[in-house]
Amino acid sequence: MAEYTKTPTNKLGRLAKRGAYDYETVHSIINTCPVLHVSFNDPNQPFPVVLPMLGCTGNYSNPSSDPNTTEQDIYIHGYVSGRIFQTSKETGDEGLPITVAASHMDGLVLALAPFHNSCNYRSSIVYGYATLLTDPEERLYAMTLITNNLLPTRWEKSRNPATTAELNSTSILKVRVASASAKVRTGGPHDDRADWKNEDLRTGTWTGVVPVWLQWGEPIPGKDNGKVEIEGYIERWRVKENQKGRVYAYEAIQKDD
Amino acid sequence: MAEYTKTPTNKLGRLAKRGAYDYETVHSIINTCPVLHVSFNDPNQPFPVVLPMLGCTGNYSNPSSDPNTTEQDIYIHGYVSGRIFQTSKETGDEGLPITVAASHMDGLVLALAPFHNSCNYRSSIVYGYATLLTDPEERLYAMTLITNNLLPTRWEKSRNPATTAELNSTSILKVRVASASAKVRTGGPHDDRADWKNEDLRTGTWTGVVPVWLQWGEPIPGKDNGKVEIEGYIERWRVKENQKGRVYAYEAIQKDD
Repeated sequence: MAEYTKTPTNKLGRLAKRGAYDYETVHSIINTCPVLHVSFNDPNQPFPVVLPMLGCTGNYSNPSSDPNTTEQDIYIHGYVSGRIFQTSKETGDEGLPITVAASHMDGLVLALAPFHNSCNYRSSIVYGYATLLTDPEERLYAMTLITNNLLPTRWEKSRNPATTAELNSTSILKVRVASASAKVRTGGPHDDRADWKNEDLRTGTWTGVVPVWLQWGEPIPGKDNGKVEIEGYIERWRVKENQKGRVYAYEAIQKDD
Repeated sequence: MAEYTKTPTNKLGRLAKRGAYDYETVHSIINTCPVLHVSFNDPNQPFPVVLPMLGCTGNYSNPSSDPNTTEQDIYIHGYVSGRIFQTSKETGDEGLPITVAASHMDGLVLALAPFHNSCNYRSSIVYGYATLLTDPEERLYAMTLITNNLLPTRWEKSRNPATTAELNSTSILKVRVASASAKVRTGGPHDDRADWKNEDLRTGTWTGVVPVWLQWGEPIPGKDNGKVEIEGYIERWRVKENQKGRVYAYEAIQKDD
């Protein structure tokens, strides 16, 4: 199984049993997460800069390769203050060291004692070097990838090609992955034997998991929309996403922790 | 209106019109976000450390004060590698400079051209100094706060008080906020006039918003659950959360961008 090498940077310490390093787990969490949190150091302040951005994994040299089994870069696009792009310009060829975080909440785990409450979740943390993408061909590849990662085939089904002005005014970061890991919590609550044997407590306190997922609702047409009937590929995507999210959240409860 | 002062750290550059600095917006996003991304610099590596954690805002000196109008600290709890707590010990009294990020995705905004696609979202970024909480009374306050922020009254309705062992083995960070801001995108798509006047494109491409929210599903009892009927406060919370999320996502579409 293709996976990331454990290093002092990505190796999980506490609760290491929840750790995963394989491409499939790390990349799928990133590619299904609607918002990525991109963090980097700003020499002018003690606090890291964190930006919510859109992005996904890709492999430009082998576009049809499977992200579950092949090396990936991360392409990131977003309306940002520009600081990250400015800073990445200044860092030169090696690129700006950044950390990309993606997390899904899958359920609230309720135990007899608050101390044992937990959450079912999936999170990926990727460490890499970000550079501003300049090659027009690869920029087009990345924009198509990011658009279709949000809604499959939307790029082809909406106006394209992009105009030169659009291509020039869109900033895209390419992150060369240095190291990565994922952490996944599944299952139900685990209580202390003492609490569990406390009959009054046990029969008086509901314990279990409340599953949670992202629910995509009935689409609302924009004021200038001219397509009376919503296209089938949008509805099929929406229904499928809702089902995938729900199924994962419920299946996670049945898995061991 | 109580708000954070604009500084070079928190002031939004690009798309500043989407920025908000008032307590209500910044704090409510944090307190409704199931996962917070906590980021800090690690002197041993070029990449910021990012940890998904649980937390919420609070004011220990004035517990009953309204987070929408009064100064808040952020209390954070989570199963972490321990690096953050170790590092925060080493930083001494001032505390560890950290950045706390919270983001909600509220909708996918589909335009005629991929370049104009967007997302409705809310995100808060808080910069502050984190110290390990040692005072037993305040630690208890923080644990109660974090538990009840996930599920109101769960602390009181499950086994308490916590045992000394539980209290001692729970690490809690208190973040003294130095600066913060929020960014909110609402509304529908905005297309270029040229695309909009392209009748074939406009009548052939659906544009609008697909709203999205966190959906809490039917709770699943744990294997040791002894409370046959789920308690009403859990079901009321679940139904209310789903409604709040759905209503926000739909209302956001009607607001201006």
